[in-house]
Amino acid sequence: MSGPDPVELSTNPFDDDKLHEECGVFGVFGNPDATALTALGLHALQHRGQEAAGVVSFDGQQFHTERHIGLVGDHFTKASVIERLPGDKAIGHTRYSTTGAPVLRNVQPLFAEFAAGGFAVAHNGNITNALTLQRMLQKRGSIFQSTSDTETLIHLTATSDRGHLVERFVDALRQLEGAYAIVALSEKKMIGCRDPLGVRPLVLGDLDGAYVLSSETCALDIIGARFVRDIEPGEMVIITEEGGLESIRPFIEQKPRFCIFEYVYFSRPDSIVEGTNVYSVRKSIGAELARESGMPADLVIPVPDSGTPAAIGYAQEAGIPFELGIIRNHYVGRTFIEPSDHIRHLGVKLKHNANRKMLEGKRVVLVDDSIVRGTTSLKIVQMVREAGAGEVHMRIASPPTMNSCFYGVDTPEKSKLLASRMSIEEMADYIKVDSLAFLTIDGLYRAVGETKRNAEQPQFCDACFTGDYPTRLTDRSNNTTVRQLSLLAEAG
Amino acid sequence: MSGPDPVELSTNPFDDDKLHEECGVFGVFGNPDATALTALGLHALQHRGQEAAGVVSFDGQQFHTERHIGLVGDHFTKASVIERLPGDKAIGHTRYSTTGAPVLRNVQPLFAEFAAGGFAVAHNGNITNALTLQRMLQKRGSIFQSTSDTETLIHLTATSDRGHLVERFVDALRQLEGAYAIVALSEKKMIGCRDPLGVRPLVLGDLDGAYVLSSETCALDIIGARFVRDIEPGEMVIITEEGGLESIRPFIEQKPRFCIFEYVYFSRPDSIVEGTNVYSVRKSIGAELARESGMPADLVIPVPDSGTPAAIGYAQEAGIPFELGIIRNHYVGRTFIEPSDHIRHLGVKLKHNANRKMLEGKRVVLVDDSIVRGTTSLKIVQMVREAGAGEVHMRIASPPTMNSCFYGVDTPEKSKLLASRMSIEEMADYIKVDSLAFLTIDGLYRAVGETKRNAEQPQFCDACFTGDYPTRLTDRSNNTTVRQLSLLAEAG
Amino acid sequence: MSGPDPVELSTNPFDDDKLHEECGVFGVFGNPDATALTALGLHALQHRGQEAAGVVSFDGQQFHTERHIGLVGDHFTKASVIERLPGDKAIGHTRYSTTGAPVLRNVQPLFAEFAAGGFAVAHNGNITNALTLQRMLQKRGSIFQSTSDTETLIHLTATSDRGHLVERFVDALRQLEGAYAIVALSEKKMIGCRDPLGVRPLVLGDLDGAYVLSSETCALDIIGARFVRDIEPGEMVIITEEGGLESIRPFIEQKPRFCIFEYVYFSRPDSIVEGTNVYSVRKSIGAELARESGMPADLVIPVPDSGTPAAIGYAQEAGIPFELGIIRNHYVGRTFIEPSDHIRHLGVKLKHNANRKMLEGKRVVLVDDSIVRGTTSLKIVQMVREAGAGEVHMRIASPPTMNSCFYGVDTPEKSKLLASRMSIEEMADYIKVDSLAFLTIDGLYRAVGETKRNAEQPQFCDACFTGDYPTRLTDRSNNTTVRQLSLLAEAG
Amino acid sequence: MSGPDPVELSTNPFDDDKLHEECGVFGVFGNPDATALTALGLHALQHRGQEAAGVVSFDGQQFHTERHIGLVGDHFTKASVIERLPGDKAIGHTRYSTTGAPVLRNVQPLFAEFAAGGFAVAHNGNITNALTLQRMLQKRGSIFQSTSDTETLIHLTATSDRGHLVERFVDALRQLEGAYAIVALSEKKMIGCRDPLGVRPLVLGDLDGAYVLSSETCALDIIGARFVRDIEPGEMVIITEEGGLESIRPFIEQKPRFCIFEYVYFSRPDSIVEGTNVYSVRKSIGAELARESGMPADLVIPVPDSGTPAAIGYAQEAGIPFELGIIRNHYVGRTFIEPSDHIRHLGVKLKHNANRKMLEGKRVVLVDDSIVRGTTSLKIVQMVREAGAGEVHMRIASPPTMNSCFYGVDTPEKSKLLASRMSIEEMADYIKVDSLAFLTIDGLYRAVGETKRNAEQPQFCDACFTGDYPTRLTDRSNNTTVRQLSLLAEAG
Repeated sequence: MSGPDPVELSTNPFDDDKLHEECGVFGVFGNPDATALTALGLHALQHRGQEAAGVVSFDGQQFHTERHIGLVGDHFTKASVIERLPGDKAIGHTRYSTTGAPVLRNVQPLFAEFAAGGFAVAHNGNITNALTLQRMLQKRGSIFQSTSDTETLIHLTATSDRGHLVERFVDALRQLEGAYAIVALSEKKMIGCRDPLGVRPLVLGDLDGAYVLSSETCALDIIGARFVRDIEPGEMVIITEEGGLESIRPFIEQKPRFCIFEYVYFSRPDSIVEGTNVYSVRKSIGAELARESGMPADLVIPVPDSGTPAAIGYAQEAGIPFELGIIRNHYVGRTFIEPSDHIRHLGVKLKHNANRKMLEGKRVVLVDDSIVRGTTSLKIVQMVREAGAGEVHMRIASPPTMNSCFYGVDTPEKSKLLASRMSIEEMADYIKVDSLAFLTIDGLYRAVGETKRNAEQPQFCDACFTGDYPTRLTDRSNNTTVRQLSLLAEAG
Repeated sequence: MSGPDPVELSTNPFDDDKLHEECGVFGVFGNPDATALTALGLHALQHRGQEAAGVVSFDGQQFHTERHIGLVGDHFTKASVIERLPGDKAIGHTRYSTTGAPVLRNVQPLFAEFAAGGFAVAHNGNITNALTLQRMLQKRGSIFQSTSDTETLIHLTATSDRGHLVERFVDALRQLEGAYAIVALSEKKMIGCRDPLGVRPLVLGDLDGAYVLSSETCALDIIGARFVRDIEPGEMVIITEEGGLESIRPFIEQKPRFCIFEYVYFSRPDSIVEGTNVYSVRKSIGAELARESGMPADLVIPVPDSGTPAAIGYAQEAGIPFELGIIRNHYVGRTFIEPSDHIRHLGVKLKHNANRKMLEGKRVVLVDDSIVRGTTSLKIVQMVREAGAGEVHMRIASPPTMNSCFYGVDTPEKSKLLASRMSIEEMADYIKVDSLAFLTIDGLYRAVGETKRNAEQPQFCDACFTGDYPTRLTDRSNNTTVRQLSLLAEAG
Repeated sequence: MSGPDPVELSTNPFDDDKLHEECGVFGVFGNPDATALTALGLHALQHRGQEAAGVVSFDGQQFHTERHIGLVGDHFTKASVIERLPGDKAIGHTRYSTTGAPVLRNVQPLFAEFAAGGFAVAHNGNITNALTLQRMLQKRGSIFQSTSDTETLIHLTATSDRGHLVERFVDALRQLEGAYAIVALSEKKMIGCRDPLGVRPLVLGDLDGAYVLSSETCALDIIGARFVRDIEPGEMVIITEEGGLESIRPFIEQKPRFCIFEYVYFSRPDSIVEGTNVYSVRKSIGAELARESGMPADLVIPVPDSGTPAAIGYAQEAGIPFELGIIRNHYVGRTFIEPSDHIRHLGVKLKHNANRKMLEGKRVVLVDDSIVRGTTSLKIVQMVREAGAGEVHMRIASPPTMNSCFYGVDTPEKSKLLASRMSIEEMADYIKVDSLAFLTIDGLYRAVGETKRNAEQPQFCDACFTGDYPTRLTDRSNNTTVRQLSLLAEAG
Repeated sequence: MSGPDPVELSTNPFDDDKLHEECGVFGVFGNPDATALTALGLHALQHRGQEAAGVVSFDGQQFHTERHIGLVGDHFTKASVIERLPGDKAIGHTRYSTTGAPVLRNVQPLFAEFAAGGFAVAHNGNITNALTLQRMLQKRGSIFQSTSDTETLIHLTATSDRGHLVERFVDALRQLEGAYAIVALSEKKMIGCRDPLGVRPLVLGDLDGAYVLSSETCALDIIGARFVRDIEPGEMVIITEEGGLESIRPFIEQKPRFCIFEYVYFSRPDSIVEGTNVYSVRKSIGAELARESGMPADLVIPVPDSGTPAAIGYAQEAGIPFELGIIRNHYVGRTFIEPSDHIRHLGVKLKHNANRKMLEGKRVVLVDDSIVRGTTSLKIVQMVREAGAGEVHMRIASPPTMNSCFYGVDTPEKSKLLASRMSIEEMADYIKVDSLAFLTIDGLYRAVGETKRNAEQPQFCDACFTGDYPTRLTDRSNNTTVRQLSLLAEAG
């Protein structure tokens, strides 16, 4: 091809300038269509992880496993796949991966055959001392397939000196630091568990008498299950055919610290998390933003789709028309060849186009949920300006994102986060807006129903905004690294 | 699997209860990155056809072709594919297919080597006497690969007794009845042409001196090309390296009849078609609807995403809050296994979920662009009701769709169209709403800037609403059918 | 990888230093398992073409086609493929391709829908005026998919001004020069035809009353069909349900010139071609060779497997033990990476290994069927020497191959043929043998049962040895070339 | 499809009526092209296992693994695969699997990361107490990926309480019963080891100073390596960069019992195993057979290709002509659809066809290497008779196969072995021959150079003929079974 060297523009919707939740978990106990229901639940949780998905079922005799790279809808829609997963008990997992090429052996649920029987585990979160534990286990002769923290949990369970499986599993969990919401399945039991801080969500549902566990309520809705309650921080529920649901609290009690970013971006707007509807919180955030940093304008324009609820809230509070000034292309490609370097901002245009006629000569409030690296904001603003907008005022529906997350979210290193490198004024210059404002941390706490952030004892995990991590970060302190471990390498 | 037989729920976004535009066309003449630009243009036109896409380029010596089943972003993003299409001239096509399995030999652009050189044609529209012409050609010894009307045009050109290629092409086009917007490429020329009625759109753009042809302006935006003007109904533009652009009018002149449904649903909201911004028309439609059939309500809720602009227009006109009461799952699957038949309405839930907290106890105005078979409306309404809505008033942003389209749109048979079978009251009962109103035909004409529909000489093609077809339907009158024709059948 | 650049060693069994027959044809008329039988027949003809295979069936209503790159056993063994080809009439084709990457549109049988009905053609041979005819047809408006001579035949048939299909087909065939053995299928008829010289073989069989046509008798054996007779040079047989088999002779009669190389290498040893068993001919060739150029030795060693029958004949005539001094690896790979350039002769070793213990210190007669480029002979001889053979005497079971074939065999250009560049002495030096002898042309004619070659009126086509081509070579004289033609290019 | 139900005929060359060696092993230490050489070595060992192949390399920093279902030539011929396996040390494995669908996690070499570093193991043979050991390990918390005996060995090594890797490995091996020839690779060492009885072969080669280990010498030939010596029964060789090759004997010494069937069928005829050329042994077997049970005949015909060397030996000893009366189709398919059930014996014809002209009216001696189930013999004899043979005398180049092998060979259960169910006379009737004779056990011992079998202390493992197993069969005595174990199930 003549002209300048082609540059690959990544337009993967899963790879853009956003933080990414790494996982969704789901389980059904006691319905003859357990696997089909689990596939549907995972589909509704697809926004929590788009790289790969897996389901383990148990048919009373045997466990069955299918794990695939790709969307749930790419694989778990086929009758042949569903039929390979018989049984009335099933758990599933959908995953976003942080590094490198997707590798099947990292796809969950993980399954192991213990001397006492099979055990499958699906995990959302991240263990901050997993590598340290792994080195210890390896010295004792455990052979790892992956560096996955979930596998660490399984080996801890396998080598525990306790008696029954639940005791061994509790013994293993007590050695973990970090955040986890887990759904596990043995021959007799489905187990749901949240870490003592309750950083990641997990809810309980009921479908005609069958128990359902899910990361979010939107996955209960898709199968028509009734929302029963949240699993509580530090709670373990043990579901059996005979005993129904038993709840235990095997950990030392702590003040909960639910992840506040679930409200800002991760969870689906139609979900109810920790008792509160996400869409309503986002609208409240928009209203807070209008009160905190409103200004005269002709239009309120969301950056679709993540900025939309906050933009509606802002527009209603400010009494300024809400308009679709940016149109989203739903047919997202992976990576296009850039035709030449004088055609700039192509990346953003693959997903978004300015609705020129709406913007010409207007004073625009542009609402987005957060700024990570700032690369997308820069391009969006430029596109809006080139379409003729008179003024561009950017309003962000969260405080500046200044710190990495170590609890199951894919964040760039701190040094790549725009807000860790620049002041708000510098950021405004960088992305070339007439004004830029973030929601204050107290504004965010107000939007979720608190009066303000309790600095002594914060009500949420807000480490990405404040740097206040609620657990130890052992592997990080130890600078632990582990070589790529595997008994069985994957084939190409 | 135990339980009732699994039923496959089609949730293909491309196969739902909507009318489908069958094609988008695009071409670049005189830019070294012609193919990469064409791929981008087709990506922006993806909403006009998601089944398959193709590009033909010419490098001064040879034509190159790539055609693939799937989205543009699935294939035309790879450097290897782009490199197989060298040259500074390229045309492309994206296609939605009406019947049966997608077959590669139907994918455009079609390309033929004539004794005088190569010729590639990409076509949006439908020829209503194609089969009749095909039978005539076959008797003379022409061998067809497909029943495609585009191939009919190519054989007419090949066997024409005129001299130069343009003359032969005009000779061929004059034998056609129906609707077409065509982009064609020979070794020396790029040709753009619209049928005398101008049913389908085609626009001219300029990228740093290179000519661009496109179905819609949104595809000019993505590559940063300047919108120059619409190609006019009955106009043929002939672009050459020496002569620039020459415009001829080879057909008997007729009053234009642009497809009004392009404003209602087909075109992208950010496009400017026939001089008017689509988003603005859709907002005006919503406002007309509020004026024609407004009623007291708590919320205006769009059926996402096609109902959104009209819902915003309605909400602004009526002074009722616009809210996202239905959340769309962006990770659309193909077909899931239905877990059991007491879980109903699953199909719609794969794509949409009611935002329960917004809807509980509310009087809701639900806005959608059209009703085709009514199956989706039925499910959406039930979902909204089950989420607790107090009243549901459905408002449709177009008149009742009562007739099939024969001009390049995939419509069900007339008998399958809900509005051809029922009165509005019956439809309201059927989809179980408290009230149902459609936009009037004059309301629609007002929204596009006319005073009213001119019944003698309608300003647009509105046959799907009125049954007033602007051309003869020869094949249909003749009841012409053709056996599956092919020299070379496709492999599995 | 360190070390010298890796070199790819082609070890494809289909791509080695041999001449390659380009096609096998087969057809069944009137058996409910016509397609399965055709698949089996093609499998038995696999040695005549390994690149691709196709089958067309007719079920009384419709024609069905499957064509695939790869071996018959790769595709036509699946129930799903066989079921897509219903009917009691089927024809098939297996193909070796001369140039470039295999492309599906060149795979036969070709099928075309004429105004009068469908017509499928499978062809073994080569038309020497095909390009000249193609140019004529193109000027009249025929659009070609390929440069295949078979498609030329189909367009000639389609545009013939005669009445019925058989008349049109004969009209088309009369315009051809070159070699052809054809099996064709219309809705009512199966047609078999050999060119007037009968260069390529075609036989008639009977399976419980169903007619069978095949390139060789070994394909009758596999399905248990009885061999009836050869189709004669210049004969056309027309098989119908009502009339059984009708034989006509539509061409001007000529003296037959069957391809003598079919005996030397192309046909399978268990086939009976033109009345004679191939294995017996090859043994006679070996015996002739022993008489013409025998010499004292300890062992007779075939180059497996093509040299084996002649080596057995030589050993029996000469009274010297026949031994397996070279062992063939049956698991032939495609192309291995050469580890480093000081490890020579790897290519040949991928297929063959010297049986060292048999060869040490022995005087060896090495028998091969022919020498084409000489590259394999050179390596085989060196391998045998390195294994310790004392003397190596090469005996070739045919005269020197000095000329290209234009009748359906893939031959290198004349300048690449070792025998056209060197005397026998030079060749002996080049491949490093102690002696080298070829069979004389009269020896070859004796082995096939003639007294000697009749120089005035040769009994066979032996142009590869003598340069005496039995037809005009019009395209070659005209230096006709045709641009790559296609209405529909293939996707990657 | 009309007619009787189609029956699938398995004609997989890898699945016919033969015993199958399960594995070949190969390793190179100290050559920059280690992986390419290993791929070539495995290609030469392909006859020992066609289901899957794998290579592990070490580049000084990291281990790299590729394992694929299919032939070596299907995967390890690509530059991209070879480049993913850098390093100057590599080991490889080719495998035939006994049961069920091929599963990637069973493909060797297995690789594990121990606390002390990586360790890869490739194994030919079978451990007769593997399941018993596995149950013990599982109780201690080891998590298995497979039921593979090789993985048992790896866990025994990982959990050993000894110090250095070699000590741990010896500790693990000492717990094994059964047959093994192993090639293993750590960061510093390549290890080769044969069990104390030396049931399976392993040889040492030298390629310009680099050590090579291989199951057979034919794989040394392909890379041009020099054969140094056999690894001895009970010997372990430890190859390091510093120390060269160290030989230890870590096991209690026993009289060797090499597998005599390696001479009869498993090894390639060009290999030298335990000091003797396989082709020569097979010819001697044929001569013994002629002496033991010769009879007047016109032709000696091998069942190709396994019966060919013995047939040559028989023909030379008996003075009867050796002829190719059965022609093999080299293009072996997998499974064809049987067209109808009155066409019998199709299975065998897919691979073999009678050379009718050679057989008509002749008294034939048919030579095959062994009879397993007898199904193939039955069909071959019938095919030869239908081709017109006057008399058919079957001669088998080994004693009756009456017992299963538990040392790494895929044998049917004893009850499926024809010779365990019938006398020789009954077998002759069953396969419908005029006479049938097997080689005597002493005849076999004579052919390999012994005077006779020493019944007290047999010189070879001949359990398949005699039932005299040289080791304990612990799992079998315990009736140990293990549930399907896996941490990570495979994806489809």
